[in-house]
Amino acid sequence: MTRPMPNSRSDYVVFQAITTRWFDNDVYGHMNNAVHYQLFDTAVNGHLMSAGVLELKTSPSVFLVVQTSCDYFGEMAFPDLVTAGVRVAHLGESSVTYDIGLFRNGASVATAQGQFVHVNVDRETRKSVPIGDDARRVLTAMRTDI
Amino acid sequence: MTRPMPNSRSDYVVFQAITTRWFDNDVYGHMNNAVHYQLFDTAVNGHLMSAGVLELKTSPSVFLVVQTSCDYFGEMAFPDLVTAGVRVAHLGESSVTYDIGLFRNGASVATAQGQFVHVNVDRETRKSVPIGDDARRVLTAMRTDI
Amino acid sequence: MTRPMPNSRSDYVVFQAITTRWFDNDVYGHMNNAVHYQLFDTAVNGHLMSAGVLELKTSPSVFLVVQTSCDYFGEMAFPDLVTAGVRVAHLGESSVTYDIGLFRNGASVATAQGQFVHVNVDRETRKSVPIGDDARRVLTAMRTDI
Amino acid sequence: MTRPMPNSRSDYVVFQAITTRWFDNDVYGHMNNAVHYQLFDTAVNGHLMSAGVLELKTSPSVFLVVQTSCDYFGEMAFPDLVTAGVRVAHLGESSVTYDIGLFRNGASVATAQGQFVHVNVDRETRKSVPIGDDARRVLTAMRTDI
Repeated sequence: MTRPMPNSRSDYVVFQAITTRWFDNDVYGHMNNAVHYQLFDTAVNGHLMSAGVLELKTSPSVFLVVQTSCDYFGEMAFPDLVTAGVRVAHLGESSVTYDIGLFRNGASVATAQGQFVHVNVDRETRKSVPIGDDARRVLTAMRTDI
Repeated sequence: MTRPMPNSRSDYVVFQAITTRWFDNDVYGHMNNAVHYQLFDTAVNGHLMSAGVLELKTSPSVFLVVQTSCDYFGEMAFPDLVTAGVRVAHLGESSVTYDIGLFRNGASVATAQGQFVHVNVDRETRKSVPIGDDARRVLTAMRTDI
Repeated sequence: MTRPMPNSRSDYVVFQAITTRWFDNDVYGHMNNAVHYQLFDTAVNGHLMSAGVLELKTSPSVFLVVQTSCDYFGEMAFPDLVTAGVRVAHLGESSVTYDIGLFRNGASVATAQGQFVHVNVDRETRKSVPIGDDARRVLTAMRTDI
Repeated sequence: MTRPMPNSRSDYVVFQAITTRWFDNDVYGHMNNAVHYQLFDTAVNGHLMSAGVLELKTSPSVFLVVQTSCDYFGEMAFPDLVTAGVRVAHLGESSVTYDIGLFRNGASVATAQGQFVHVNVDRETRKSVPIGDDARRVLTAMRTDI
């Protein structure tokens, strides 16, 4: 196990506030580790939807998740308010890797952070297809390395 | 099946804004019917916690759910913002019945509404015990019928 | 709050074994009340799918949930094995009411039981449409009152 | 993104059958990526509980998750039956790394696979403590590299 250093809010580009729920807490009284991935999905797809490049029922192509990971530096729990920060770490022909940080209430460093790899596929055939120009523009604006 | 009329926001006493999540949507592209109950729990317990009468790890008594129900008048979906309204419909010696309404974004009438019955039990023995004075004061303030 | 008597296994017609999960347990160490509705959905739709009358991507009509309720008589918890029993309580022109019982491990009476009302709607317009002959045959075979 | 090769069933040591649920499927009609982590938790903790080395309410130490990851090679969906295979990849003084594979129905190679790192902590202080002898015996029997 290698452990990254926790990122700061300023390491991310777009942010989304997510309210926690009673049932996010498992038997240990803290947010279950699987919930973090619900928040990753929400932060990434929420931004794509609000930017107009993901439409649930009609987009000819959709983004499927092929790899995810998360490091948990501390505990979160209902009724915390979580802020999710997202940036694009890598943008390929048909895939995109997001870095995501989850910040508990007013925390300045990430309580948990992870990666999330989307591949753009045809909705019917599920074959990978190039990311379109509109989505590419939105994703490029989420990079911090250029 | 008998169907109640949808309530208005003014029928409830305390309110909580809850963000939806990508995974709230099921294969039909709308919030799965089980998610509404996650929101009920969150609205009720969230208010009890913020009012200081439910402490997850130390309260000698806890509220267990013995009956729930929900009528779905319309569909909700991520990325909607849901406002949950809560009132106390009945307050007994050791049990309390909540009415809860879920309002989709700016809706003035409930998109879904339900009931939720809590019984106050000893944390260890799980036997019902009278609701304490502090909790009773908070719950009484959530009644609209007196 | 009125409380029904717990049913027996013999009150139901079709059965499905459902494994519990670590995260079904909430902070009280028992299955959260919202999980029961995930099991209801699974038992009902699972039977419709295995009977060949619900096909997720191509059915012209789908069943949407308009009312649900549950009574909790006892606690269940991971790693319990739950058996869900289902029968049809009422079958209308375009709607069907299911009774569902959840039995913890070897229990002979229901640990929780509830109702679940489906309305058959056109997939696109979401207007109610009559239940087709094939589905009606499957649903009629789940009645115990005729 | 580097991608591992999918493992076979024979690469794992202990197995658990897990039934899928209607609500595991998201809007794309397949198991949402966060659900895989619910199955990881279930497979690992289920084995520890059945082996008698994790008792939810009384163990003085508990295992908290500090790192997780998953590669998705193919899609799964309700009503699939999933078999989770687990082995111990690394066993340290107070931490243990599990490899987990998820096999869809009769698949001989993993449909998804991941890692899951547990740290043994004191239940109250949440400080790491050495893994006890009983648990270490159970975990050692899950290694394939010795």
